[in-house]
Amino acid sequence: MGKSLSVNLSRLKSTFEMSNKIGGTKNGGIHRLTFTEEDKQMRDIFVQWMKDSGLKVRVDDFGNIYGKREGKNKNADSVMIGSHLDSMPMAGRYDGILGVLASLEVVRTLNDHNIETERSIEIVNFTNEEGERFKPNMLGSGGITGKHDKEFIYNVKDYEGITFLEGLKEIDYLGSKNNRASHVAYFIELHIEQGPFLEANKKVIGVVDGVKGSSRFKLSIKGVSSHGAFPNDFRNDALIAASEIALVIDNQPDIFQDNLTTSIGVFEVYPSVQSQTSENVEMTFDVRHLNGNIKRKAINNIKQSIEEIANKKGVEVKLEQTWDANGQNFSKKVIEMVKDGAESYQYPYQYITSSPLHDASYIADIAETGMIFVPCEKGLSHREEEYVSFEDIEKGVNVLLYATQKLANL
Amino acid sequence: MGKSLSVNLSRLKSTFEMSNKIGGTKNGGIHRLTFTEEDKQMRDIFVQWMKDSGLKVRVDDFGNIYGKREGKNKNADSVMIGSHLDSMPMAGRYDGILGVLASLEVVRTLNDHNIETERSIEIVNFTNEEGERFKPNMLGSGGITGKHDKEFIYNVKDYEGITFLEGLKEIDYLGSKNNRASHVAYFIELHIEQGPFLEANKKVIGVVDGVKGSSRFKLSIKGVSSHGAFPNDFRNDALIAASEIALVIDNQPDIFQDNLTTSIGVFEVYPSVQSQTSENVEMTFDVRHLNGNIKRKAINNIKQSIEEIANKKGVEVKLEQTWDANGQNFSKKVIEMVKDGAESYQYPYQYITSSPLHDASYIADIAETGMIFVPCEKGLSHREEEYVSFEDIEKGVNVLLYATQKLANL
Repeated sequence: MGKSLSVNLSRLKSTFEMSNKIGGTKNGGIHRLTFTEEDKQMRDIFVQWMKDSGLKVRVDDFGNIYGKREGKNKNADSVMIGSHLDSMPMAGRYDGILGVLASLEVVRTLNDHNIETERSIEIVNFTNEEGERFKPNMLGSGGITGKHDKEFIYNVKDYEGITFLEGLKEIDYLGSKNNRASHVAYFIELHIEQGPFLEANKKVIGVVDGVKGSSRFKLSIKGVSSHGAFPNDFRNDALIAASEIALVIDNQPDIFQDNLTTSIGVFEVYPSVQSQTSENVEMTFDVRHLNGNIKRKAINNIKQSIEEIANKKGVEVKLEQTWDANGQNFSKKVIEMVKDGAESYQYPYQYITSSPLHDASYIADIAETGMIFVPCEKGLSHREEEYVSFEDIEKGVNVLLYATQKLANL
Repeated sequence: MGKSLSVNLSRLKSTFEMSNKIGGTKNGGIHRLTFTEEDKQMRDIFVQWMKDSGLKVRVDDFGNIYGKREGKNKNADSVMIGSHLDSMPMAGRYDGILGVLASLEVVRTLNDHNIETERSIEIVNFTNEEGERFKPNMLGSGGITGKHDKEFIYNVKDYEGITFLEGLKEIDYLGSKNNRASHVAYFIELHIEQGPFLEANKKVIGVVDGVKGSSRFKLSIKGVSSHGAFPNDFRNDALIAASEIALVIDNQPDIFQDNLTTSIGVFEVYPSVQSQTSENVEMTFDVRHLNGNIKRKAINNIKQSIEEIANKKGVEVKLEQTWDANGQNFSKKVIEMVKDGAESYQYPYQYITSSPLHDASYIADIAETGMIFVPCEKGLSHREEEYVSFEDIEKGVNVLLYATQKLANL
């Protein structure tokens, strides 16, 4: 079993071709934000595809879409597979989308071979994973796992003041609370790596052992602007303090050498004019690690350095934490099945910890969860250039097929 | 002589009060850009004041205004004193303005005491010293000293496309080329320090020995933007490279310990969004020193570090020099007279090199030139908070009076 079974790559390609047209950008990317016309179009087609494959489709009160393929054992909890169909602005064709379309292909392949499973298999498309239009991200999976109150989610507003609930109604995907995922034994999400390791190590399958926890901060630095001719040692230059802090933040992974990731996002300098030094810098940064203790240690290092640099440079700092998510270890059983899948097809694989967050990191609270990564070129994601070869996609979907089938019969 | 003579402080104060009203801001600053309605108003009043003091007023083809007090010796070259009445946007009340109003007070004081001098004394208001509306700065003094062609100056445009010549005509201050400063033996400019040294050293008079040369650069850094979760060591983060470069630039004065000044002005980061690392940084910086060799060495240090950091971080850099001015040593004779003045009144003084540029640094090419500095609070200039006490102003103007009179009788 399993080993010989393989997905239909040409069918999967044509499924992708349709997806590429919905919100497709002229540079080969996808622009498909939550609850926009493009999101609705893609959802409608996805629902139709699921119905055509004999699945029982339902929508919950956060707009998450499920399609169920009944198993032989009506009392057994199901195996859920899927991801999200929404995208970042001017983003890539694969992030999220791969996991959903691959799940459909898994079901279609089982149908092709008239394979029944003990457990039911459910495909899922989570709402608003990217969180670009409605912040924060992962509101669909966050809603059903209790990470956020329903009231909070419904009242989240986009840039124009439109609420999540209004957006949901607008595209006609407000379903019932009764339809939320429940009685799920296992969840598997196939996703592009969004990092460089598989490519660098010439591996095709990433057996994901967990998702890093992520803490985000906003830092305001207030110094004193002066004439550019003012002697350097007498200045309280916000930019120079911020530059030192940036290097400290960037240096933490070298200190811990332990799969820690840090990044600086927003970095705004005022007044930013010639021959005038800086008064203010506003910046954001994040710190990611699977292990909460190591993450905390790195954050404390950074905080201490910020204080020291602020004192040395005579600038005022205000640090605010804007997000905190714990790291999540994945299910040993799911990890084992993914590894077995890679071995059974003789695909080169490696264990890997996800640095970005995924719906899987929330779903891990309600089901035994795992992920499968496939390599993406140069690790680039959330960009129109995002690229995954269909050779690798085929392998990733085969492993998903293998693990799903195994878990559905356990 | 000299020692007993002192300017009329209450008259000088009332002259300042009028200046403060023309382009005065609600926070106690001045907003008086070149060739605006405010500039014209201030010029008109200044011309009237000079005429009231018996001066022979003329305007040259760059809008520089002169007022001449005839000396006894018609063949002797004159002593010129003055500065500029224009300001930076939302700037201070003293920068430039002090030098012009003080010069008027010097003439008024000489008139009060019916003191004749051998040489003629000329007051001057230079056009567009600040260069905010019409770039570059110091176009008035740069025009008469041949730093810039007349054609170049006339065609410089403001943000709205209005040329220097159009602006000059608009306020009716287009004079004749024959009126440019000529036959000037000495030039003295009284100015606020715009730095912290006099205040820090508890000195009232800065005997300025020269103006630092200044080189300005524009640096573009192009890296690769990635997901914030992308491992740090695999990134080509433009901001991290720029931060290292910023610290290298800021560190040069520590290497040379020799009155070198460096500053970073513009610093723009793209895309500057949360959880996404940086693709590009655009920055400007400058390097200042009196001695061209030391300035060059510092610039070479910086260039070499930029190359090294770019290689290490895998980012592309483009460096462009946008400005270069040589350092200017001032006249020994003028320096001596300024020092003698401070000593004769028993004012605490120190020698100092000007880090910012001034009209004096151009005029040094056509006349023996010097400057007098008075302390400004915290060294802050080009800002509404700019503050100089009238106690210190009085002392500075007394020294200007002393040096002017001495040089006019040499």
